[in-house]
Amino acid sequence: MRNPELVEVLRGSLVESRHRGAVAVIDADGAAVLMLGDGAAPVFPRSAVKPLQALPLIESGAADRYGFGDEELALACASHGGEPAHVAVASRMLARAGLDGAALECGAHWPSHQASSQALARSGGAPSALHNNCSGKHAGFLCVACMAGVDHHGYVAAGHPVQREVRAAIEALTGIGVSEDQCGIDGCSIPTWGVPLTALAHAFARFGTGRGLPPARASAAARLRAACAAQPYFVAGTGRFCSEVMKLFGARVLAKTGAEGVFCGALPDQGLGIALKCEDGASRAAEVMMAALIARYLPLSGDERAALERFMRPTLRNWNGIAVGGLRPATMLSSRRPGIDNP
Amino acid sequence: MRNPELVEVLRGSLVESRHRGAVAVIDADGAAVLMLGDGAAPVFPRSAVKPLQALPLIESGAADRYGFGDEELALACASHGGEPAHVAVASRMLARAGLDGAALECGAHWPSHQASSQALARSGGAPSALHNNCSGKHAGFLCVACMAGVDHHGYVAAGHPVQREVRAAIEALTGIGVSEDQCGIDGCSIPTWGVPLTALAHAFARFGTGRGLPPARASAAARLRAACAAQPYFVAGTGRFCSEVMKLFGARVLAKTGAEGVFCGALPDQGLGIALKCEDGASRAAEVMMAALIARYLPLSGDERAALERFMRPTLRNWNGIAVGGLRPATMLSSRRPGIDNP
Repeated sequence: MRNPELVEVLRGSLVESRHRGAVAVIDADGAAVLMLGDGAAPVFPRSAVKPLQALPLIESGAADRYGFGDEELALACASHGGEPAHVAVASRMLARAGLDGAALECGAHWPSHQASSQALARSGGAPSALHNNCSGKHAGFLCVACMAGVDHHGYVAAGHPVQREVRAAIEALTGIGVSEDQCGIDGCSIPTWGVPLTALAHAFARFGTGRGLPPARASAAARLRAACAAQPYFVAGTGRFCSEVMKLFGARVLAKTGAEGVFCGALPDQGLGIALKCEDGASRAAEVMMAALIARYLPLSGDERAALERFMRPTLRNWNGIAVGGLRPATMLSSRRPGIDNP
Repeated sequence: MRNPELVEVLRGSLVESRHRGAVAVIDADGAAVLMLGDGAAPVFPRSAVKPLQALPLIESGAADRYGFGDEELALACASHGGEPAHVAVASRMLARAGLDGAALECGAHWPSHQASSQALARSGGAPSALHNNCSGKHAGFLCVACMAGVDHHGYVAAGHPVQREVRAAIEALTGIGVSEDQCGIDGCSIPTWGVPLTALAHAFARFGTGRGLPPARASAAARLRAACAAQPYFVAGTGRFCSEVMKLFGARVLAKTGAEGVFCGALPDQGLGIALKCEDGASRAAEVMMAALIARYLPLSGDERAALERFMRPTLRNWNGIAVGGLRPATMLSSRRPGIDNP
């Protein structure tokens, strides 16, 4: 199935580049609200399912045992920028379980937050696994292992008890059995399972509302949502889409990015889950798509609509700060139409 | 016209992302050798036409007057990484014309070469316009202004004599008149003119062979080609596609990348010019496309084919260095077929 053009990149008088993609907006009962492009093909959700992957941290009792609050829980759901505060919370999570950064198996990379990266270099430092954008999630995995009393070494492998728990949570929320035939290794070395966008969106509708979930799981999801809403800085970082949007809307929006142009999210008050993928893997387009869907389905005040505009129609500036173009969503994405939008 | 899928991004057992694009391979007489996708729509070539934009530097006599050798001429064609040697040559070019980095109007950014960026930060430094990937091209522009005895201030504006010369060179090589209606501002603040891929490829066939050009222009093009072949490091930098490919093939390949997924190049011995654009603007895909076209049209030894493979089918590794996937060209791009490939 051909994916439509959903985002245009403008420069001067031309459309310079175009991004295609697929979108699924699904309610908690599994009914399709909006389908654009191929929602049935398996997609690697990558980091966009971190909120689902964090469920075992709460359900196992580890979050309570180690005294985790909103900062820790938000960081467990995060693709963070490696800013000092992110690193500090990841370290604190590990320390509560008697571990340190050496236990992390996610690999090291320079902070994606440029100022933090330059400051680290300026101090003569080098990046560690704590700076990895996934270190909060991995710290959570390690806490699950410690809580269960199992050897944490190799916790990234598909066969380790921690990853089996994570897989079970994803299967329960999405309602599908994932398969080794549709599996890849993620940037941080854990398995990423191929899931159709429709199932991912349904999972986020359940996660966002608790509908159709056992009470303990609904409660765990609510606690993670509340943590992200209370501490959005710890879900991404300074100036980043997920943090800024959740700062703007609080508990009304859950938004989580993933590599290769994936975005998942929930609009709890509307009972909707969202999953999308930019076909070519571009984050810049996935962000525009996500912003357009929030604007389409969330009732907004004038101020909120204006604040969301910079994510929905971001301006491109060159090295002299001159506005040279921008991105914009295609009309089929930004316009709500009776008969297409079911609710 | 719909652009075909030309590059696949693989992870585990799935195609995770897909890149569409358009390709034009044209000979010096203007005959189409290969056309895939929309070759007629105007494309902003961005930095991919830097070799054409450097023609006035030689034709004006400035390169001779200021004693420029291969390093300076290669840097004038470059999108460099801001490595110390790049910055040194840009400074030297400006000093020869009695100027310094303060005359550059390209704006400043951190070196794209990560180690140089970290070293700059570590030393307590900050980026200047000399670190801008376009500083060599801009140093060349300033030398053209000084040679002509015109005020260099505002040399980035479309109406400045330097940009009028640059525009005239592009129009002559492409054989088309560019238009204010299809114009954008580039990252470095000079105009970028919309040109069809067919015309860009024809321009590079002429640039690569000198055919159809006045003798002085053919000679200037040959001198720029020889400079890039002799000093490919100064066209891009450590580990970068353009530098590595020209190091591998010398004068047999001219390859120049541009922002938003553009690539231009020439195979002088085959008399061919190449222009391509990845529809979504992704450099990673444009590089695979360019490598596939080189492999398709340039006779290669076994060793050369093997060396080119890492650009044509690059491996993706995660933060632990594990091979998690890769990119590959679509069959229609990598396979030469009688009846489709004219020569």
